[in-house]
Amino acid sequence: MRRACIIGASGVIGGELLRLLLGHNNVEVVCATSRRFAGEFIYRVHPNLRGFINLKFTQPSIDAVLKSESDVVFLALPHGESVKWVPKLVESGLLAIDLSADFRLKNPDDYVKWYHWPQPHPYPDLLKAAAYGLPELHRDEIKATKVIAVPGCMATASIVSLAPLVKGHLINNDFIVVDAKIASSGAGAEGTVLDYHWHRTHVVRPYQPVGHRHTAEIEQELSLLAGSQVNVAFTPHAVDMVRGIFVTGHARLSGSISEPDLWRAYRGMYGNERFIRIVKDKAGLAHYPSVKYVVGTNMVDVGFELDQRLNRVVVFSAIDNLIRGAAGQAIQSFNINQGFPEDEGLRFITPYPV
Amino acid sequence: MRRACIIGASGVIGGELLRLLLGHNNVEVVCATSRRFAGEFIYRVHPNLRGFINLKFTQPSIDAVLKSESDVVFLALPHGESVKWVPKLVESGLLAIDLSADFRLKNPDDYVKWYHWPQPHPYPDLLKAAAYGLPELHRDEIKATKVIAVPGCMATASIVSLAPLVKGHLINNDFIVVDAKIASSGAGAEGTVLDYHWHRTHVVRPYQPVGHRHTAEIEQELSLLAGSQVNVAFTPHAVDMVRGIFVTGHARLSGSISEPDLWRAYRGMYGNERFIRIVKDKAGLAHYPSVKYVVGTNMVDVGFELDQRLNRVVVFSAIDNLIRGAAGQAIQSFNINQGFPEDEGLRFITPYPV
Amino acid sequence: MRRACIIGASGVIGGELLRLLLGHNNVEVVCATSRRFAGEFIYRVHPNLRGFINLKFTQPSIDAVLKSESDVVFLALPHGESVKWVPKLVESGLLAIDLSADFRLKNPDDYVKWYHWPQPHPYPDLLKAAAYGLPELHRDEIKATKVIAVPGCMATASIVSLAPLVKGHLINNDFIVVDAKIASSGAGAEGTVLDYHWHRTHVVRPYQPVGHRHTAEIEQELSLLAGSQVNVAFTPHAVDMVRGIFVTGHARLSGSISEPDLWRAYRGMYGNERFIRIVKDKAGLAHYPSVKYVVGTNMVDVGFELDQRLNRVVVFSAIDNLIRGAAGQAIQSFNINQGFPEDEGLRFITPYPV
Amino acid sequence: MRRACIIGASGVIGGELLRLLLGHNNVEVVCATSRRFAGEFIYRVHPNLRGFINLKFTQPSIDAVLKSESDVVFLALPHGESVKWVPKLVESGLLAIDLSADFRLKNPDDYVKWYHWPQPHPYPDLLKAAAYGLPELHRDEIKATKVIAVPGCMATASIVSLAPLVKGHLINNDFIVVDAKIASSGAGAEGTVLDYHWHRTHVVRPYQPVGHRHTAEIEQELSLLAGSQVNVAFTPHAVDMVRGIFVTGHARLSGSISEPDLWRAYRGMYGNERFIRIVKDKAGLAHYPSVKYVVGTNMVDVGFELDQRLNRVVVFSAIDNLIRGAAGQAIQSFNINQGFPEDEGLRFITPYPV
Repeated sequence: MRRACIIGASGVIGGELLRLLLGHNNVEVVCATSRRFAGEFIYRVHPNLRGFINLKFTQPSIDAVLKSESDVVFLALPHGESVKWVPKLVESGLLAIDLSADFRLKNPDDYVKWYHWPQPHPYPDLLKAAAYGLPELHRDEIKATKVIAVPGCMATASIVSLAPLVKGHLINNDFIVVDAKIASSGAGAEGTVLDYHWHRTHVVRPYQPVGHRHTAEIEQELSLLAGSQVNVAFTPHAVDMVRGIFVTGHARLSGSISEPDLWRAYRGMYGNERFIRIVKDKAGLAHYPSVKYVVGTNMVDVGFELDQRLNRVVVFSAIDNLIRGAAGQAIQSFNINQGFPEDEGLRFITPYPV
Repeated sequence: MRRACIIGASGVIGGELLRLLLGHNNVEVVCATSRRFAGEFIYRVHPNLRGFINLKFTQPSIDAVLKSESDVVFLALPHGESVKWVPKLVESGLLAIDLSADFRLKNPDDYVKWYHWPQPHPYPDLLKAAAYGLPELHRDEIKATKVIAVPGCMATASIVSLAPLVKGHLINNDFIVVDAKIASSGAGAEGTVLDYHWHRTHVVRPYQPVGHRHTAEIEQELSLLAGSQVNVAFTPHAVDMVRGIFVTGHARLSGSISEPDLWRAYRGMYGNERFIRIVKDKAGLAHYPSVKYVVGTNMVDVGFELDQRLNRVVVFSAIDNLIRGAAGQAIQSFNINQGFPEDEGLRFITPYPV
Repeated sequence: MRRACIIGASGVIGGELLRLLLGHNNVEVVCATSRRFAGEFIYRVHPNLRGFINLKFTQPSIDAVLKSESDVVFLALPHGESVKWVPKLVESGLLAIDLSADFRLKNPDDYVKWYHWPQPHPYPDLLKAAAYGLPELHRDEIKATKVIAVPGCMATASIVSLAPLVKGHLINNDFIVVDAKIASSGAGAEGTVLDYHWHRTHVVRPYQPVGHRHTAEIEQELSLLAGSQVNVAFTPHAVDMVRGIFVTGHARLSGSISEPDLWRAYRGMYGNERFIRIVKDKAGLAHYPSVKYVVGTNMVDVGFELDQRLNRVVVFSAIDNLIRGAAGQAIQSFNINQGFPEDEGLRFITPYPV
Repeated sequence: MRRACIIGASGVIGGELLRLLLGHNNVEVVCATSRRFAGEFIYRVHPNLRGFINLKFTQPSIDAVLKSESDVVFLALPHGESVKWVPKLVESGLLAIDLSADFRLKNPDDYVKWYHWPQPHPYPDLLKAAAYGLPELHRDEIKATKVIAVPGCMATASIVSLAPLVKGHLINNDFIVVDAKIASSGAGAEGTVLDYHWHRTHVVRPYQPVGHRHTAEIEQELSLLAGSQVNVAFTPHAVDMVRGIFVTGHARLSGSISEPDLWRAYRGMYGNERFIRIVKDKAGLAHYPSVKYVVGTNMVDVGFELDQRLNRVVVFSAIDNLIRGAAGQAIQSFNINQGFPEDEGLRFITPYPV
């Protein structure tokens, strides 16, 4: 049994961590902090938890966390906040699982470039020691670290869909287009007027179409796999769904590549993965991935199609942004790190339709 | 371990039974029938199950069920079909859990009146022996029977919301208005043009506003509790949601009733129930029930409000129509019947938001 | 040509007034005020108007309105604000069309009771002189007044659906249930967290289920028609749609009433109305009203069904909350008052599907 | 006054033609055919038209059309059907406006390649004489023809968004990615199970991601503008909206191109167009196009963003698929051909929000 603390527990991702950890056989949640709602019952902010948890939110403080005798701390904080917590947690011997971007990028200068920090990341050694918590790519590092940087939601979907092609040198790396479609819950508990129902239903609109921060992670991870620089032209769009990310990757093939070549690349990399399905089927309802088939789970569904006319490939991936894109992937990495079954607390099948 | 067979497994409710039973620790699904899809992999019709089940649909036949050595048979068939199966299953000593209406009404003549059967129900003894599978009202009968008639989805929500008031004689029984709002998945896998997306999104439209069949069950169960005839003016509406039923009951109070009286009625009846929450809170996000807080679970959330100006009460309830309104309630009753923990296979917390 | 000014033009209703008046052949919009956006181009707040209007918002002030040489002023202000404007406008001889509740109730004390004003309405004479701007009920008064109080959106739908029954003494007036379903845009431009997309899609939840302010208008108008007190048990619900109100009325019949009696009541009252359709059809797609068939128009669709078993009637009505529930009805009344064709600027047919 | 006949009037596009032509000052609809609904009142199939039209559907036949003394025939038929009608209509001197694909492609062999016809188009001369009815590109040909081939909905959005870049030789033409997002109403009145509400809400799923037929039109028109072959990697996706198409184009710049260069290209081509808006704004709600701002109108909103890091450009366009993508564009071309004001019958402003 591990004692867990959630910092930033009143947000959408904090709520999802609470929900999932309540069903985890090896975890007891001992504290959940919220600056805004400290003193309030958790179920008043997360009404789905009514009847399942009687804890109240507490004020966030390192001292309180240490006193709570937690083994692991999940940080669901805004970017730029986690970096103030993680060094102290690690110093005290705790496992830090950070859902912000603060430890995702290996190059300290990238925080200046992509996150507009006034200076490079102040803890380059911790950056090196941190594992990029995408289990299918970094399982060994996740096992051996005290800092897990949970990938961005759109980065997760993008990297998983393209990794086999990049690793196998099957596509041109100088111009990979990633066109993402994202759900509303990604905006977190503090939205803007554009998150109101009447602005956000039945909509498609671009969101930071150039220079989106997740580009940095995607290029970092794909370049690592390729062994050379990969350029990703990344453009996300807000669409009408509450949960889910759908990523479409468009790339030119590097040579004469056949459909069996593509199958081999995907099967070779993901054939034994518990949380990745290759969805490509001529029969049945589902010919390709869809957010509808992954919502509520930690799955990544990937698929692809070859276009011989233009010697190009289109790849797809779908995830639940709050589970595989955040809380679920955090717990999957936690399980790996602690030696628990990788799917402990994550054995959900999508309630279809929902 | 019980061996289970699902008859009518390619429909929406059949799919939900499969999904839930795959996560049930005491059940093994050994057959799943579909006239239309016999021979096809189940995951091709229920794409959420891809990777979780390798069974194929088989043709429905009593012989095949008996050969399968099943202990329990879940029937997710259209009304009028189950009645052909259940007597034979019972004869062979199997437990029959029927999700159609064929064994819900106690009075054989009611099938003529409400379901337009050409003659009264042909198995009045089986009707008597069957339990109306609403566990919070009929737990003892469910334990002792071989035929469980799973209540209608809208009936479940309506009965649970009004039962404490009717049982406590707190309202006038001659004219109780039940205004229901229902999700699209209730239409099943075979919809009509009105179930298409563009007809069904952002819509409110009445659906069989007079004479809806669930009225019969609601009146039967409430009259039983009241000890006299209860009249229910039931009118459902199609609204834009995939899962969920929301029921609003409007009634006049029978005398001078206070809010604490109402609390006592609801707490007295449901205070210890695992799957019923009373949602009535001045603070927090959720002042009353909402489908958003029950989707994906077997919960019934109930609430109420007193209107002293008109000496009336408004009651609310919300359920997931496919779980508490069908597959989940079936499993809850199955658990009771078999002596398993009542929430085995049903320990979900709503993924909020979804 | 009339010169018009819109006070409170940056809100959702203000935007709808602008849109509709831009298409009105006898109106020129000469000013549009907004405290928050004064100085900003209107199309930056109402992106649909880009390319159609080059005006900027101005600060609201009586002096500016008078200087603008407006003939008519549309007030789309919060309740309690219009009352500060209307007396001065009337004094200056302008026509005031108020979309708030400030001049809807005839009894000055009702503002204390329903709107929690500290004292009765300060202008009882203006209340008397004001017309309740529901054209099908008050056409003559609308013609003759300088103050038009545009009805509440839910009140409009409720009154129109029940008026023929109440006027014809066909139902019991002591307990009429009105169960309303409302769209998100009614919340206006300043929503709360519960108006965010993820809280508001696929939802049904009650909203002020007891004591809602529109009850006062509904009872006032129905009592006027009945010649005696009518009691309305009014309970609205938030559902997933952007535009639209659907009202279901449940009542007991006052005696032995037949379906032809009901037809006569509705046809007698609305048979010649340009903006009211009776939707009750055994054939075709639409058996009853639906918000889908009125969105984008000034229509009220009404329908009904008789339940002989319980000697009750169910009535339905559907409107576009921003047009017939606000801006459109305001313009319809304006047209009547000014002697323009009643449908000038309002000749839209619902874009179906939308 | 022109007399118009609509062939295939019971479908979604047929209904939209009816609705728009009912508001056109120079058109009288004299016949509307439907094989399936002949003899039925039109408003029973298109409930939005109740009260606005009393015509019944008739059986489709050339003779009946000729007898109707129509001047213009709008064909809203499936691909492969119009080709049987158009030659005869032209022979009889009527104006044929074809909303299918049968006269869009100039190369007769392309019908074999993209539409799988068993042999090349049988009327190559008519193909040549037909105008591709995208008014902003082919206004003169539209004026002078008797056959107008209304462009595909996704083709319209794609071509308009990319035309200025291709015409100005600002991007590389060998690999232009067009990632489209489409509404459900595009499926027409005869959908499949995947068009049901529960499959189609809150979804993103690819739809014919390779080899989609609209690719042929897009490449034809862009190549014409470029003066050389343009390759378009086109992949559409079903998303949750009823009306609307959003197109995102991803391309590499052909050289050192600045933002003012891009502005010049778009303003130069579209600066005076009644139905095209360039939406690119740092202030206000709308920084880029969105389907929300064009629904219900004949507008095309276009926008773009420069990504200097990768020397690429992203372009956007949004249309209403049933108006600008079908019925509205047909009427715009009709107006041009007949010398009516180009916006006659099309002067709608988006009802926002809807």
